[in-house]
Amino acid sequence: MTIKEALDRIRRICKDKETSYTCYVLDKNRILEGMITVKTILMAKDEEMIDDLMDTQVIYTTTNEDKENVAKLLSKYDLFALPVVDNENRMVGIVTIDDAVDVIEDEATEDFEKMAAMLPSDRPYLESKVTTLFKNRIVWLIVLMISGIIVGEILGYYEAKIAAIPLLVTFVPMLNDTGGNCGNQSSTMVIRGLTTGDITTKDWLKVWWKEFRVSLLVSIVLASFNFIRIAFFTKAPEGVNVYMIAISVSGALFLTVILAKSVGGLLPILAKKLKLDPAVMAAPLITTLVDAAAIVIYFTFVSHLLF
Amino acid sequence: MTIKEALDRIRRICKDKETSYTCYVLDKNRILEGMITVKTILMAKDEEMIDDLMDTQVIYTTTNEDKENVAKLLSKYDLFALPVVDNENRMVGIVTIDDAVDVIEDEATEDFEKMAAMLPSDRPYLESKVTTLFKNRIVWLIVLMISGIIVGEILGYYEAKIAAIPLLVTFVPMLNDTGGNCGNQSSTMVIRGLTTGDITTKDWLKVWWKEFRVSLLVSIVLASFNFIRIAFFTKAPEGVNVYMIAISVSGALFLTVILAKSVGGLLPILAKKLKLDPAVMAAPLITTLVDAAAIVIYFTFVSHLLF
Repeated sequence: MTIKEALDRIRRICKDKETSYTCYVLDKNRILEGMITVKTILMAKDEEMIDDLMDTQVIYTTTNEDKENVAKLLSKYDLFALPVVDNENRMVGIVTIDDAVDVIEDEATEDFEKMAAMLPSDRPYLESKVTTLFKNRIVWLIVLMISGIIVGEILGYYEAKIAAIPLLVTFVPMLNDTGGNCGNQSSTMVIRGLTTGDITTKDWLKVWWKEFRVSLLVSIVLASFNFIRIAFFTKAPEGVNVYMIAISVSGALFLTVILAKSVGGLLPILAKKLKLDPAVMAAPLITTLVDAAAIVIYFTFVSHLLF
Repeated sequence: MTIKEALDRIRRICKDKETSYTCYVLDKNRILEGMITVKTILMAKDEEMIDDLMDTQVIYTTTNEDKENVAKLLSKYDLFALPVVDNENRMVGIVTIDDAVDVIEDEATEDFEKMAAMLPSDRPYLESKVTTLFKNRIVWLIVLMISGIIVGEILGYYEAKIAAIPLLVTFVPMLNDTGGNCGNQSSTMVIRGLTTGDITTKDWLKVWWKEFRVSLLVSIVLASFNFIRIAFFTKAPEGVNVYMIAISVSGALFLTVILAKSVGGLLPILAKKLKLDPAVMAAPLITTLVDAAAIVIYFTFVSHLLF
């Protein structure tokens, strides 16, 4: 086909279609052979042949590809449109980048919801019914409440020590909060990286090694801060060695931070590897795991140093 | 200008430019007068006039507009390109949708980081230096550790009661976790809504009313669950009325959930109103506020019912 024929055909066909300004060249069986932009056509001379000008290296997708992956492909190659072929390689349609924008936004919203322990919603917030919001939220709240109860039971296991030195329990919120925050930071970075494609499951060792070094630095700062605060500014009850409390708290904090960042970095990758959703798995599970571990570590120190 | 002249001009000018297939019609002073797509040009007859065919209602943006808003505009109107004018309304360039995709992705990543208590990063995770990750994370960890310490001090205020009935402290992790999760769910929905434009600061009353009703439903379920669990399945120490513990815990939970959802819904809107960043403000502040409130509410119940 010559350029002149092509232009005539474009004028005829495109009248009522959503245009992408990329023309796909098909053979008789609708198999994708190449692509050529309207720009190339406009730049060419009337008698040149499409065959000579078209690009045969076409990036395309298939009808059974996940829409998130299609959006990623469009975004990665800065494409305005992507042809879609069926199982027999016949072209059946195109996806344009404005569709991808919506998919990318919806996907981010979904991840936000999942990471805040909610089922993803179909509609914008203000249009959602109260009962729908309730249903989306209550499931994970119950699961997490039960895990909070379990953490409480673990704390209850050390009741006798708390009764003897109630001061000990005042360090638990800080230990739990810090552990949770550390784990959350790591898991958020990794989940987001897995979504945008910056991180793949093959990077697990790199991720862990990075998180381990970051956690060492964080641990040193936070543990020192607490050691100094407790050793020099906290009044221990009579007969209790304040330095032993300081060592217990800062030692537990040190180990908790390292554990939290390793778990936060690796659990989302493990979830992805097991074909589970990293955003759903990570946040809630990590907090419970780290909370429970922090309490056990802390009271292990306490048992050895103070009783 | 006729269509034929326009086509010749496009062929001449567009050779080496990134094309958007939308032509902007300017007057002699480069003031934007209208737009016409290459599609319209191709469909038209050679002798038709651009003036008659162009669209004079052009959506445009200015050089000093925030890139997030430009991306939102492109996405909202499903545009492939947007003309940019300077302060004197002279057209100075275009923004295309593939730029917007990157902005939308980066913006979501930034919000994820901020909501997980980190400073936003410039580079992908695997390319970030350990010291950079450390610096981005340590600031908020210290702030939140201090707020965890404050929550611990508040808990310490009730030391005498904890020493008398150590069982009381085992309900604190569940109360704090549930309060934090409830607040986090609400704030995440509202922050995301503010980002995507589904919610504006004017909607504060609608948001609060929605959150209030959701929180009532959530409260009833979670408080009942805990009342039954404690009243019928928990062994209280001798001389302690287990029903009073059940009322204290479930009463505190009931009020905490309602408070958490109100604060979680309104604080991001307040932050936005005060021109602060909702994503930065909300998550950390809400958890601390709700944790502290939960402990005070709980021990107020305890003081009245058990001592």
